[in-house]
Order: sequence, then structure tokens, then C-alpha cells
Amino acid sequence: MAPSAITPPQGVQSSTELTTAAVARKIAETAPELINNGVNTKMGLRPLDASKLKFTKTTTPMSVPQPGDPIINTSSQCTDHMITAHWNSTTGWADPELRPYGNLSLAPTASCLHYATECFEGMKMYRGFDGKLRLFRPDANCRRMLMSSTRISLPAFDPSELEKLIKVMIAVDGPKWLPRPGSFLYLRPTMIGSAPALGVATPKEATLFVISTFMPPLDSPNGMKLLASTNGVRAWPGGFGYAKVGANYGPSLMANGEARARGYDQVLWLLNGTVTEAGASNFFVVWRTKEGKVQLVTAPLDGKIILDGVTRRSILQLARERLTDNKTGLESLEIVERNFTMEDVVEASRDGRIIEAFAAGTAYFVCPVSVINYKDEDLDIPMVRGNSGDYAALIKSWLTNIMYGKEDHEWGVVVPEVEDK
Amino acid sequence: MAPSAITPPQGVQSSTELTTAAVARKIAETAPELINNGVNTKMGLRPLDASKLKFTKTTTPMSVPQPGDPIINTSSQCTDHMITAHWNSTTGWADPELRPYGNLSLAPTASCLHYATECFEGMKMYRGFDGKLRLFRPDANCRRMLMSSTRISLPAFDPSELEKLIKVMIAVDGPKWLPRPGSFLYLRPTMIGSAPALGVATPKEATLFVISTFMPPLDSPNGMKLLASTNGVRAWPGGFGYAKVGANYGPSLMANGEARARGYDQVLWLLNGTVTEAGASNFFVVWRTKEGKVQLVTAPLDGKIILDGVTRRSILQLARERLTDNKTGLESLEIVERNFTMEDVVEASRDGRIIEAFAAGTAYFVCPVSVINYKDEDLDIPMVRGNSGDYAALIKSWLTNIMYGKEDHEWGVVVPEVEDK
Repeated sequence: MAPSAITPPQGVQSSTELTTAAVARKIAETAPELINNGVNTKMGLRPLDASKLKFTKTTTPMSVPQPGDPIINTSSQCTDHMITAHWNSTTGWADPELRPYGNLSLAPTASCLHYATECFEGMKMYRGFDGKLRLFRPDANCRRMLMSSTRISLPAFDPSELEKLIKVMIAVDGPKWLPRPGSFLYLRPTMIGSAPALGVATPKEATLFVISTFMPPLDSPNGMKLLASTNGVRAWPGGFGYAKVGANYGPSLMANGEARARGYDQVLWLLNGTVTEAGASNFFVVWRTKEGKVQLVTAPLDGKIILDGVTRRSILQLARERLTDNKTGLESLEIVERNFTMEDVVEASRDGRIIEAFAAGTAYFVCPVSVINYKDEDLDIPMVRGNSGDYAALIKSWLTNIMYGKEDHEWGVVVPEVEDK
Repeated sequence: MAPSAITPPQGVQSSTELTTAAVARKIAETAPELINNGVNTKMGLRPLDASKLKFTKTTTPMSVPQPGDPIINTSSQCTDHMITAHWNSTTGWADPELRPYGNLSLAPTASCLHYATECFEGMKMYRGFDGKLRLFRPDANCRRMLMSSTRISLPAFDPSELEKLIKVMIAVDGPKWLPRPGSFLYLRPTMIGSAPALGVATPKEATLFVISTFMPPLDSPNGMKLLASTNGVRAWPGGFGYAKVGANYGPSLMANGEARARGYDQVLWLLNGTVTEAGASNFFVVWRTKEGKVQLVTAPLDGKIILDGVTRRSILQLARERLTDNKTGLESLEIVERNFTMEDVVEASRDGRIIEAFAAGTAYFVCPVSVINYKDEDLDIPMVRGNSGDYAALIKSWLTNIMYGKEDHEWGVVVPEVEDK
């Protein structure tokens, strides 16, 4: 497989111009569901419409970094193309474009540079061991993106249209950029307020874009070490902790830097003593209750404090389906979404009732926790399998099997590709 | 005065090239304090250094909109030039540039587009009735910008260097763009995380820029109508409400949109019933206490919930200096920074003890409040002078006199100009 250029898809004449029409025809032939759109005819503002995608092939294809290339650790190497779609408040969504990856040109007055009118999603595309390209529950990410954009006063869109656009992009870039079975690339759908106007007001223009990057492995070989924050607070009732908006991230960097300076990997965020998130991931504890039950516990969604993580939701569902009936060889779990405090964790640790703990999210996947520092005391968290607890290891293996096609599951969504020859 | 181009400063030969050297020489002759920098020689990372400013004159000067031009209401018309300065974590600050206003080119992976690594200041430049150009307490804004950049994990700088850069910019653009006595332009120093890397981490590159825009008058002729928010919360203990970071603004737009849909101008933000800010302004009440004292009350800074507004601070200082000794014809005020609740306001309103209320900040200046809605009840706030209360009107007049040079005061900082002929 030549890494230097996208060759035209099969059935398209080989020319230097890979036209929009040719790509659209090819996709229509091989994967019509990607561009079929039944909801684009309503009156008023134009909806986001993947069927109107325009395609401009890059004329300066980039080289694919090989495993071990230091650029992978910078999370700055993107693939050859990106999706962009512009919206304005008078006409709605313009035709989306799949175009060469490149810089954005933004007015210095653009809303996103001043008022954090921005939201995003984190997803991965996986090259399965069966050679197929998959997304993991992309519908969930696209729906959450709509929730986030609404929370941050950016425009609405049909989540299924965003999903189609994401699929078209990886259909084009996947063959060249993700050839190795068992590997993944990170996907970043993003929306920003781009209107050139300084007033503190709902943006009148927005730009949606989707990019894909290499990402360093974020596994912590010795487990993630958490520092429970006793002063900084990530989110608050009546705030926006549940939305994937930029405003939840930048303000967290200071506390995270302090944690790293003290030898920890991430902050364990507390709210009035209640455990909420670990870094930018959801947080789970497996402990034995005082009554003797083994319980998987994580913070609830109903306070709108924490992110409704796709990995979190998937873990809970798999655990409910597969870890409550003693069929795995591991003791059955009670699955509980409820508020619990750091004092509860300390007490369980002192009693020897903590079985394991882990952080979960798209970026860090399922990452065992080895230490939690609270009020200057390190609590050691068991990792019975050397670098993980048993439950986390099993759950991680199930998810991995779905992502990479070893288990056929509706969450592993195969994406047809515009084949690179 | 020809609005079509900046003509060379006096003493500089008239040529089509207004060189950096020529401008630097002119500034050195007429205003050496603008580029004198005594702190730029320390070891390690290069500091922000106004004396290294490079100047590139626009070759496509814009037309100055006349009063009444609709573009003024869009807050998108900037002046001919902008200041930019780039920073990276290995070398520090590069030489700043004064260059033609234009779009920024940002990688789609730039930190500020995803994680709200951004902060800003709001300032105005005033054309005095004496013909002089002034800033109002620019040192306070530049120090706060440093506080904000530190809070959002962006690089530090010497605030006095930023102040010099701002002054150079308006020294160049002021003559053409702000000719009319009694008028102002809005200034927006901004810093963004600009490194092309998606990792959730302290940005390794940043861009500082300063732009200047026209701004519509934000006076509310009938007073500002506030809707007290009973669900949304702007800022919380352990958060970042005290810093002028983007993350405080975008998330507030949704509640503000709801307020406008219900016929109000801004949200009055509460925290557990305590009154904090009005829209993006500080909030003041003048009331008679149950003990009979006339009191000016506003939320305190010590909880780090509200912005330390320059206008707020100036109002408190002027009130303490001039409104506590019965010399104005108005009854003496007791000046109090303390937490007070919306229930306190309701009770005072029912007792007829509210004398007036107003919002204060750079954008809205001193803006009388006419109505506060709380739990579906409108509280009418007195405005005895038709469109203002007496205290707000008097304070506003004092500040106006300082800003436009009718009162000689250390807060009104005259900026020497590179004269347009």
C-alpha cells in the first residue's frame, strides 16, 4: 500500500482530478447509506446535509508516520483531509466540504477565540483484525455533539448527518492512514462560533469541522495515579459539566499541572467531597460494601455534573449484561450509579474493601488506577493482574473485541471504504 | 483629515514605505516611555518586549465608518492595524508585531478551538474634549490580563509591556480612527493557546493579539431589565468566575438568550441565592438599611466568584472619596462589599428601601437597572432622574469627566499619538 497518495477509488478513472462527482458516484454505488438524507427538505434554514458534500482532493498528500515516529506523541499529525461545514443564522448550513487538511482562517473577532463558543467530540476509528474499519457507537457521539452545541449556543443539526460526514471522511482517509489491524486513529468533530463580531451574543456564524489525528498511547503501565482536588472544582449544579464544551477543559489545566508537578497523572475532581470525574474521564470503583456485596459504583448523570461518557455508558451496560450472573468466573457485581464521597473511598480503603478502580473514556479507554492521594495521604488501589484489576481487564477485553471486530456487536459499526489500491 | 490612509508622522519623510525604523524613531522622539523596557535582559525564556516591536503598515487602509453607519452595530469593524506576539514554551516571546488587521491562521488542532485556552480584556480609548487620546487605568487591565492568562494556563508576561504595546497601537490608529471628541473605540487584548496539538495539556504555543473595534452604544434608555437566574449558575467556589477567560462567557449565552426571549436584557446571576453579577457586568444596589443608613452594596471579591472589574473598583473608590461626606448634595453613602441575597433585595423592594441599582463594566459603563424579575415577579427599581438614579448619574459623570479629560486625574492616561496630518 503506497502511503504517499490516495489513488482513485475502484471504478473511477485514474486522473489527477478526483472529482466530487466521481467520489459521490463511487460512494453512492458502494455505500448509499452514507449520503442518503431524508430530512433535508424542510422549510426555512437549510439543514446540515451530507448528501450535498463537495469533495476536493489534496494535491499535497502527506506521509503516514510509522509506529515509533515521534510526531505521533505530539497529537498534531492529521490525515490528508478534513470535513468542514459553515452555518449562518440567515441561511442555515452551507454544503459541507471534504477538503485538504489545512489551517482555518478566523477573524480576530471570532466568537470562539473570546467566549469559548466551542464544543467537540472524541471518537476513534479502529482497523479490525478482520481488516474492516469500524467506529464505536458513532450515533452516541453525534447525539452528544448536538447536546453540547445546543448548550453552548451553537447551531443544531441532525446527528445522523454528522455521522454520515464522519463516515465519508474516514472512508476516504482510512485506507491510507489506518492500514494496520489492531490500531486506531483519533477523530475530533468540532464546532466553533466563527462570526466576526465581538458582542457577547449567540454567534451568527459557526463552523463545523472533523479532523483525524494520531494519538500517543495513553496507557499508564503502572496504573493512573490520581490526586483528589480539595480546592479546585471542575463543575457545579447549574453549570455545564455534562456538556463536551471547551469551557470544561482549559480551566482544568492549572490543577492538572499542579497534580503532575506532585507526581500524579490526573486530578480526581470532587464536588463538596463527592467524587465526580478523573481528569477528563469518568471514574469507577469496584468495592465490597459493608454488607458484603461486590459493587461497581460510578457518579450519576442526573446532577448534570459529569459527562455522559460513551465508554462509561458501554461499561455499565456490559457489566449489567455480563457481570451480574457469575458466568465469568468473577464474583457478581451490583451496578450502581450514585453519589459517593472521597470519605467513602477512604473508609473502604482502610477497611480493605476496595477491589479496584479505573478511569474510562475514549482517550484513556479503560485505565486502571493505582493510587489516589487525598489530603496528603496516598491510598493504594489494588491491581491484582499486575497492571489492572480483574474486572477492568475483562471489561476492556470485551470492548476491545467489539472495536476490533473479534466480537460481532451492534456497537462496532463497519464503515465502507473508498479503497486505496 | 483624510480617512483613507495613515500619512507618515511629522518629521518622517513622506514615502509610500513607512518603515519600522521610522515609526520607532518617531515614537522614541515623542514618547520614549512607550518603548523603554528595563526587564528584557533576564536569562532563559525571552520576555514579552515592546521595545522589539516590528511595524508593517497596511497597504489597504480601510474607510472609517461615520456615525450611524450600520456596521458600527455589528462590533466587527476593526481599525487598520493589530498587535500580535507569539510565544512558545522553548524560546518564550518572539518580537511583537504591529501589522495590518487581518485574519488569524490557526491549525484545526489549536488548543483554543477545543479547550477554551483563551483570555481577554475589555478596554476603551477615549478622544477627549481637549483633543487628547486617553486610556482609563490601562495598568489595571494589563495586570488582570496576566492573572487571567495564568488561570487558564497561558504564558506570563510583564503587564507593563502589554500596556506599551496597546499604547503604540492606538498611537498609530487613534488619529485616523478616533477623531471626534467625546467618542471612544473598544480595545480587545486577547491571548489564545495556538499550539497545533490535540492533547488536553498546557499549550506549548500561544498568540497574544490586540484589536480595536467600533461598538454600538449599549445604553438602555429605559434602564436595564434583569432576570434573576434561578437555575443557571455562572460561577462557583473553586472555579474561575474571577478570571476574564472565555469559559465564563459562552456558557452564559443560553441563559441570556432565554432572558431576552422573556423580554429582559440580561441575567442577574445568583449563587445559592446570593447576587453576583448582572450579565457580564458587576452589580450595585443603593438601598436604605433597616437601620436607616443609605448603603452602596456590591458582591465581594474574596470568594473569587465575580470579576474584579476596573469600573467596579473605580466606582467604589470614587464613592468612598466623594460620597461619604455629604458634599455632593446627596445623602452620604456607606460603601459595603459583602454577600447579599436576592431575598434581601426583594425585602428591601417591598419595604420601599431600594433607592437605585445599576450594572457597571467597561462595555455597559454605568447602566441603571429598572426592573429585576425574581421567581416570576417584577421588582421595579426607582430611576428618579428619568433614566437613572442620582448616585449612578453622579458617579457616571465623574468617570466620564476623567475619561474624556474634563477632570485631570491619574486614571485618565494620555497616550501620545503618531500624528495624522
